Amino acid sequence: MPTKRDYPVDQIRRYLETGPIALVTSAHGERRNIMTMGWHMMLQFSPALFACYIWDGNQSFDLIRRSRECVINLPTAELIDAVVTIGNSSAASGEDKFAATGLTASNAEQVAAPLISECVANFECRLEDDSQIDRYGLFIWRVVKAHVAAEPEALKTLHYRGEGLFMTAGDTLSLRPRFKPQNL
Amino acid sequence: MPTKRDYPVDQIRRYLETGPIALVTSAHGERRNIMTMGWHMMLQFSPALFACYIWDGNQSFDLIRRSRECVINLPTAELIDAVVTIGNSSAASGEDKFAATGLTASNAEQVAAPLISECVANFECRLEDDSQIDRYGLFIWRVVKAHVAAEPEALKTLHYRGEGLFMTAGDTLSLRPRFKPQNL
Repeated sequence: MPTKRDYPVDQIRRYLETGPIALVTSAHGERRNIMTMGWHMMLQFSPALFACYIWDGNQSFDLIRRSRECVINLPTAELIDAVVTIGNSSAASGEDKFAATGLTASNAEQVAAPLISECVANFECRLEDDSQIDRYGLFIWRVVKAHVAAEPEALKTLHYRGEGLFMTAGDTLSLRPRFKPQNL
Repeated sequence: MPTKRDYPVDQIRRYLETGPIALVTSAHGERRNIMTMGWHMMLQFSPALFACYIWDGNQSFDLIRRSRECVINLPTAELIDAVVTIGNSSAASGEDKFAATGLTASNAEQVAAPLISECVANFECRLEDDSQIDRYGLFIWRVVKAHVAAEPEALKTLHYRGEGLFMTAGDTLSLRPRFKPQNL
């Protein structure tokens, strides 16, 4: 299980801007769930805003909308089996996805939704703006707490190409000397 | 220069969902520009909707907002020098970014903004919804035409990690046999 530390929320773009598949956890009342999610973007550094699309046919949609909270958990390539299991099962069948995958739930600090302990980063979110949910399924989140285990450049994240294909993060190239200081 | 073919717009998630850095071209009146863009997401398959953040301090913001059009161009690792040059220059200095980078502009089919010929994919966009621009800098686009040169799984795209570091697309893993048909 990776050991994580607090991380500044205004720097989370270093984990999310590359476009990785995320696991979104939610909880409301006695129910909890995990869903895979690949349609997301950074929206602002500080306060840290992040947007994602959630299909209203997904069982998580209702939990997330009602609780107005979630956790964005970042899986790496070792967790690909769990990612595929989660993406191809439905909580409608009554199955608990933590039990189905063997993933471990741990307590978040500021929200009721659980962290996934095996993930290298967990971002606790509160719903900032619900105005685009009905029209586009677009949730705009404020990230209120970040827990991370490793430097972003070392992470072998998963990026979905469609058709059952996942791109894995490859080499990192530094072009730092060519950047203006204000652009770093 | 890659030879491109028409591509179904309802499949563009195969290029964009992985989170690559894009080059956004725009044109209005006599002016044209290119900007780098990494904060974006798919929003709908059909009509093909795509959202991106554009900083209002960027010279492209005004061209894009007024023309209500743009092209999303997808660079691969061979173009990293051009990407860094574009990201670290400003049209405010009067420099044409095609001239500064040696990139080639070609005519789009449905919009006035140019295609970048060297990019392996070009997505022509019309502004679908301007309602979130003032609040979040969020532009919601309808992709009206797609030109692509290569299969998505073969593309070595660039993914920005912040701090001058770019992740390049690594190996693609197929988990296709584990997917339910309706999820492919």
